[in-house]
Amino acid sequence: MMNIFVTGATGFVGKHLVNKLLNEGNKITINLYKNDESPFGVEVSTYRLNENNINNDILFLKSNNFDGVIHLASLYLTNHQADDAVRLIDSNIRFSTYILECSAQSKIKWFLNTGTFWQSYKNSIYSPVNLYAASKQAFESIAMYYIETNKIRFSTLRLSDTYGPSDTRSKIFNLWNKIAKTGEFLDMSKGEQVIDISYIDDIVSAFIILSKNLNQEDSIVNSGDIYAVNSLKRYTLIELSKIFESVTNCKLNINWGKTDYREREVMNPWENGIPVPGWIPEISIENGINRLYFNKK
Amino acid sequence: MMNIFVTGATGFVGKHLVNKLLNEGNKITINLYKNDESPFGVEVSTYRLNENNINNDILFLKSNNFDGVIHLASLYLTNHQADDAVRLIDSNIRFSTYILECSAQSKIKWFLNTGTFWQSYKNSIYSPVNLYAASKQAFESIAMYYIETNKIRFSTLRLSDTYGPSDTRSKIFNLWNKIAKTGEFLDMSKGEQVIDISYIDDIVSAFIILSKNLNQEDSIVNSGDIYAVNSLKRYTLIELSKIFESVTNCKLNINWGKTDYREREVMNPWENGIPVPGWIPEISIENGINRLYFNKK
Repeated sequence: MMNIFVTGATGFVGKHLVNKLLNEGNKITINLYKNDESPFGVEVSTYRLNENNINNDILFLKSNNFDGVIHLASLYLTNHQADDAVRLIDSNIRFSTYILECSAQSKIKWFLNTGTFWQSYKNSIYSPVNLYAASKQAFESIAMYYIETNKIRFSTLRLSDTYGPSDTRSKIFNLWNKIAKTGEFLDMSKGEQVIDISYIDDIVSAFIILSKNLNQEDSIVNSGDIYAVNSLKRYTLIELSKIFESVTNCKLNINWGKTDYREREVMNPWENGIPVPGWIPEISIENGINRLYFNKK
Repeated sequence: MMNIFVTGATGFVGKHLVNKLLNEGNKITINLYKNDESPFGVEVSTYRLNENNINNDILFLKSNNFDGVIHLASLYLTNHQADDAVRLIDSNIRFSTYILECSAQSKIKWFLNTGTFWQSYKNSIYSPVNLYAASKQAFESIAMYYIETNKIRFSTLRLSDTYGPSDTRSKIFNLWNKIAKTGEFLDMSKGEQVIDISYIDDIVSAFIILSKNLNQEDSIVNSGDIYAVNSLKRYTLIELSKIFESVTNCKLNINWGKTDYREREVMNPWENGIPVPGWIPEISIENGINRLYFNKK
């Protein structure tokens, strides 16, 4: 059993992860941001970190004897406008540094951070697709100070696309499911970009395996290690649409090539990520679409 | 002649740099932070960036047709306390990103950023001596997004120690000058750390040469280039004290070895920095101490 403090628990990954951690018998406390309300029952404790009173928050974390922190909270923007820039900094660097400083001061054993494949555009060691990805990299630069000067074991799990039940984000399967039902036409790009997308259960199990590793005193995870959640198999967007049609037995009316690729469209997602030790993705895209729309395993 | 917007102009480097830029006939506007007042005459225009109204600030920068920005503003802390962490982020990442976003949106040609040798502890490509150095690295991670997606030419000049007239910081020469006058004893570490310290005029000329380079359409400076201000010669702290005694003809009562080195004392400052093309440091340590205390050239 682990005693874990989770940020971003109200998001898509967070909700699934917390439920799974609870099912496995762990003790979970979540941070609630601003006016967020807890989507969980009373078995999940809640707290609201207050960036204006760090000593109070350190005291709270200390007195709860958390083993680790899973940090999912993040502001995600594919493209930013001028006045979004500091919002991205506040959420993805300022708040992240705040909770890491609190965790280090509270002698919490480990900190599991979340990154993105988009930190490595065109498979570079570092080339950010957008300012969101740059803010994730910047926080890893900050974390390096804590990795080198503090005993806290810090690791980052970088994610690509994700899908699964109760996903309210305007992601591709939600979009296709909608046009499959209405029959309306959808303009898309040429569709030759390769997609790395994982079912939420595989994502959750990667987080849990990594957490358990970090929680061991003789952890094989070194502080600073960066891991990736790679999908079982990759498909181009066009191939993905064919699978979607086949599994759901629906026809998608897509006008391929009608829109341009994004300015920094990721044609080949990051290929050099190291998978979490001992983690094996299990859910094929066909299986995942079946689970999602027909509740079939 | 260049038309330059300068941040951090009220600091030690800023004051010297702005005066030199003015003497060379450039047009200078400085940003005033919070309640700062301008230390310059009416020939220097002033402005106060307001992080709550970016569109207004973009309009201001656009309408002034600045060629470039020299970004010196920074919060410097050798060691940080828990509640300093977000202050370092606010000043060194949030504000820096704000002004870079403004500059990119305003189509300003170039942006000269300031870094620190402390980003490379033990000559690593990146290993931060302290959270201050980590915040400087994090901003470079953010800047990479602008370097790769915007036409703005961005370069960083990394500084080590600096000294010169009207330096109010509690730096080593100020400390020694004080005990030389009073005869009091000073406890110091063993003094074997190597010091890389440059006279302010050499620092200023590095900034100006780099600015002029950045300002040329056929600049030999590539966006993203990182340069260093290396001193003419390096000395251990003990050697430096002997030179100080010899030039000032004073005896320093230093108890060497009475205090411990800092936890991450820099024994050998960064050696792999690339000097600014065409820049040659001119002022030896003897010459600099003479200028500082006897106004001799």
